[in-house]
Amino acid sequence: MMPVIKSLLFLLLVCVVVLVSTAGAQSEAEVPLRDQARFYFDAIPHEVPGKELVDHFDEKVALGQRLFFDPRLSMSQTVSCHSCHNLSMGGDDGRPVSVGHGWQTGPRNAPTVFNAGLQIAQFWDGRARDLVEQAGAPMTSPVEMASTDPLICDVLSSMPDYVAWFTRAFPERENPICFATTRHALAAFVSSLLTPDAPFDRYLAGQEEALDDLQKQGLREFIALGCTQCHMSTNLGGNGYYRFGVKHAPEQRYRPQEDLGRRLVMDTISEDYVFKVPTLRNVALTAPYFHAGSAWTLEESVEVMAWVQLDKKLTEQQVDALVAFFSSLTGSLPTIALPALPVSTRETPRPAY
Amino acid sequence: MMPVIKSLLFLLLVCVVVLVSTAGAQSEAEVPLRDQARFYFDAIPHEVPGKELVDHFDEKVALGQRLFFDPRLSMSQTVSCHSCHNLSMGGDDGRPVSVGHGWQTGPRNAPTVFNAGLQIAQFWDGRARDLVEQAGAPMTSPVEMASTDPLICDVLSSMPDYVAWFTRAFPERENPICFATTRHALAAFVSSLLTPDAPFDRYLAGQEEALDDLQKQGLREFIALGCTQCHMSTNLGGNGYYRFGVKHAPEQRYRPQEDLGRRLVMDTISEDYVFKVPTLRNVALTAPYFHAGSAWTLEESVEVMAWVQLDKKLTEQQVDALVAFFSSLTGSLPTIALPALPVSTRETPRPAY
Repeated sequence: MMPVIKSLLFLLLVCVVVLVSTAGAQSEAEVPLRDQARFYFDAIPHEVPGKELVDHFDEKVALGQRLFFDPRLSMSQTVSCHSCHNLSMGGDDGRPVSVGHGWQTGPRNAPTVFNAGLQIAQFWDGRARDLVEQAGAPMTSPVEMASTDPLICDVLSSMPDYVAWFTRAFPERENPICFATTRHALAAFVSSLLTPDAPFDRYLAGQEEALDDLQKQGLREFIALGCTQCHMSTNLGGNGYYRFGVKHAPEQRYRPQEDLGRRLVMDTISEDYVFKVPTLRNVALTAPYFHAGSAWTLEESVEVMAWVQLDKKLTEQQVDALVAFFSSLTGSLPTIALPALPVSTRETPRPAY
Repeated sequence: MMPVIKSLLFLLLVCVVVLVSTAGAQSEAEVPLRDQARFYFDAIPHEVPGKELVDHFDEKVALGQRLFFDPRLSMSQTVSCHSCHNLSMGGDDGRPVSVGHGWQTGPRNAPTVFNAGLQIAQFWDGRARDLVEQAGAPMTSPVEMASTDPLICDVLSSMPDYVAWFTRAFPERENPICFATTRHALAAFVSSLLTPDAPFDRYLAGQEEALDDLQKQGLREFIALGCTQCHMSTNLGGNGYYRFGVKHAPEQRYRPQEDLGRRLVMDTISEDYVFKVPTLRNVALTAPYFHAGSAWTLEESVEVMAWVQLDKKLTEQQVDALVAFFSSLTGSLPTIALPALPVSTRETPRPAY
């Protein structure tokens, strides 16, 4: 459901409750917690939304999985997508910023690939409109994988197995191996990395005991404090852009002055330090936090966020409850079999340092 | 069977054949190819030899598999065993020398981990007597994973899941997490990385059609040329030390002057440039070749080896046959499920650059 429609429906529900509570002498004013939650959030789906619209989707996913693990997509042939989006470890790398080609580091924290396809756009500043556009950037970024479009096509075209897999995934193409199809296959695989069945999703579905009392208290706080103004919908985030520092400027280590966020990619943004709201799905697995990767615990993160975004100082009890709620957002991570990759041939370009 | 006993038995067989051939008027002098092969080689086993001697072997393997994929065993928390011993790619990294901490490179080519436990010792110079001893070196090498014994223990002890897994694998230990048990678990996992059922193994077992004519011709050449003096037994190598350059000094790029091989670790070695004979198992998957990783094709490698070790110049037909034979040494690679790794805790030491 569209967030706008949801907000209107929720307002309507609140009005009804207020009316009923005003009318009835002893009636309970509070909307049941699950009903409130259902207005703000959706469960992670078990199937990729819209996959039926993608031709040969399964073949693209199978190919994309191989590409995701293949370090030969990088110039040095040592850095793969999996290097920084480790599927064993929450889909990121557990570092403030990632290490790439030549041991260079980038300016921003690697976001998780899990459920990434459910976001409105990709990257911290939303500069890629979808996973297809996103997939190309790390491969060709000089500080990440440092390859080039033609080099990637040369590498992949040199191995008969890849030629066969690309032909299967893109049968309509005369030359199935190119940078665009590589990006499409990677995007199909990443879109399949959903983590359904988190305790929170089971609670949304009606399992009252899926959340314990502290987690429910945290959910209540999350809604009452207004966190849902940004962290809403399926991904509890990932569907809007907001300034990091609505009420107070975050400290330099949380919001480095030189990183203006979406301002750097969108001339029309009226403010600096606007970023895409990060997802809170599996957030317990993806420390450190914020775009600079500078907060190492959820406790620190919620305190910072409550202050700089909402002008609120949280009690220890509120922090504990919120962090407990966040732990209910860890879903079932997909079981991934390590792919067998084809052997390089005489035609495969050699790794460069 | 011990190589010495085998050699004696083979000599006996040859004597018998010679006697028969001398005695009988039209008798065939040639020992059947498979019988010759069976004297020099053994099939890769399906089960880890001696695993019944290791307590809680399966628990150690399961733990070792997680450790193998965990980049938090390195100081930067980005380099795992799998980084350079890629189980999707022949158990090595397809580079002349590996890239490690701070983008440093070491002096020697990363050997494959597949069937590594079947060797008499580990590393190109055999300086580690077994996989347990081997496993510790890359973790603490400043150019590879750059960690330390205490740091590794601190990292692993900080995660309750690791504590439980170590306790299960080493129940007799009061403090199950230490550098030694980490090495033991890694060694158990690596020892389980066997690749049985190569076409050559099926040929040894009696499947005549498992090798085609060219591969059989290559096997015949391999024996006739004398390659089996070094490349023998289960791993077609890995069970002895020989000088690289018995007959002629290899070019500098193949044998860099400064790397004296086993001389650097064994004062008693009488010659320079002595190395452990590398395995030829899965050799088609593990280019580039030699300890400096400087020969990119098997064709180039066999020509170099025939000249420097055996004083022979090969014909194109011989090279083609040998390379065809080598392609029959690719076994069934194990299917590995990517492990789910536990999340770092507040106590986990943070990645350092």
